[in-house]
Amino acid sequence: MGRWEPNARGRLMEAALELYGERSFENTTVAEIAERAGLTERTFFRHFADKREVLFGGDRLDELLKSGVASAPASDSPIEAAAAGLDAVAEILRDRRTFARQRQKVIAANPELKERELIKLASWATALTDALRERAVGDTTALLAGEVAVAVFRIAFQRWLDGPDSRDLPELIRESLDDLGALTAEDPRRAAAPNGR
Amino acid sequence: MGRWEPNARGRLMEAALELYGERSFENTTVAEIAERAGLTERTFFRHFADKREVLFGGDRLDELLKSGVASAPASDSPIEAAAAGLDAVAEILRDRRTFARQRQKVIAANPELKERELIKLASWATALTDALRERAVGDTTALLAGEVAVAVFRIAFQRWLDGPDSRDLPELIRESLDDLGALTAEDPRRAAAPNGR
Repeated sequence: MGRWEPNARGRLMEAALELYGERSFENTTVAEIAERAGLTERTFFRHFADKREVLFGGDRLDELLKSGVASAPASDSPIEAAAAGLDAVAEILRDRRTFARQRQKVIAANPELKERELIKLASWATALTDALRERAVGDTTALLAGEVAVAVFRIAFQRWLDGPDSRDLPELIRESLDDLGALTAEDPRRAAAPNGR
Repeated sequence: MGRWEPNARGRLMEAALELYGERSFENTTVAEIAERAGLTERTFFRHFADKREVLFGGDRLDELLKSGVASAPASDSPIEAAAAGLDAVAEILRDRRTFARQRQKVIAANPELKERELIKLASWATALTDALRERAVGDTTALLAGEVAVAVFRIAFQRWLDGPDSRDLPELIRESLDDLGALTAEDPRRAAAPNGR
């Protein structure tokens, strides 16, 4: 057992993002991340499988999504229950917009990381679908709700990163959800979001 | 200019899939594909950038999606217009279920190809969104419709590949679209698709 390091995980994440920003993801080593954080490589590998996982945080978010869906009221529609899963993730991101923006810059600069991001989101859709099936939502509806919820999240998340917007991620997720109704509205001009977006 | 080779593209695709199935994607070379098709490597590279592109067909589908959306009636809702794009793609796939199934097996066996598939689908969402914006659909609605339409396609496509189902891809796309209404229905049991899926 190594000795306890206060907030080692957070320090490693911060150090990694700094270095990825300064010298690119490709040109940063785990040894350098550990050194910048004032920790050992061994401590790094207790928290992350590799330098990529610092950006993607392992499987914890999948579990959070599932428990969010499970805790939604029984009367919730499938998409509302899926949104409860997104809210659980949004809750832990809400105070980390600066971190999220730096992270997004690193990902945008590296095709391999962009692919990894897509895979991560595909696994979110699967987690949501599984959790909806547990609520006796039909197979097809659960699949569709999982995929649509992830689409809603991506749009809200991007707006949150881009925005000078003071609105919070959970609020932007609600807005994207409300826009779902516009998809089936017949006149595209009237279907444009009511608040002029 | 090389001499004209009858159906070179189709012969190369067929030879590639055979070889990927026999000896895996990783262990197949472009030279082997060309040889199996009775063509030269030079002919291969006139049609495909690399052995991966044989499975993904370049940018032609993006253009097909866009022109499908552009040709939808002006009164169509955003999601209906996006579906017209999907229909254009489904139309060229409908007689190729055997090919599509072999292709899916190859992709499922290779993580790099699975990632490539996700990237391809993300580019479809972008193509659909761009085409919807041209129809004066609001920004947020266009983004959401593009993502949701791709989710609808993925589900229909998977069902088409899995199915003993005699139904055609365009019909399965219509069904997935109809299921969108179930997402916001309050009682998940009643929201299960009406035909008992």
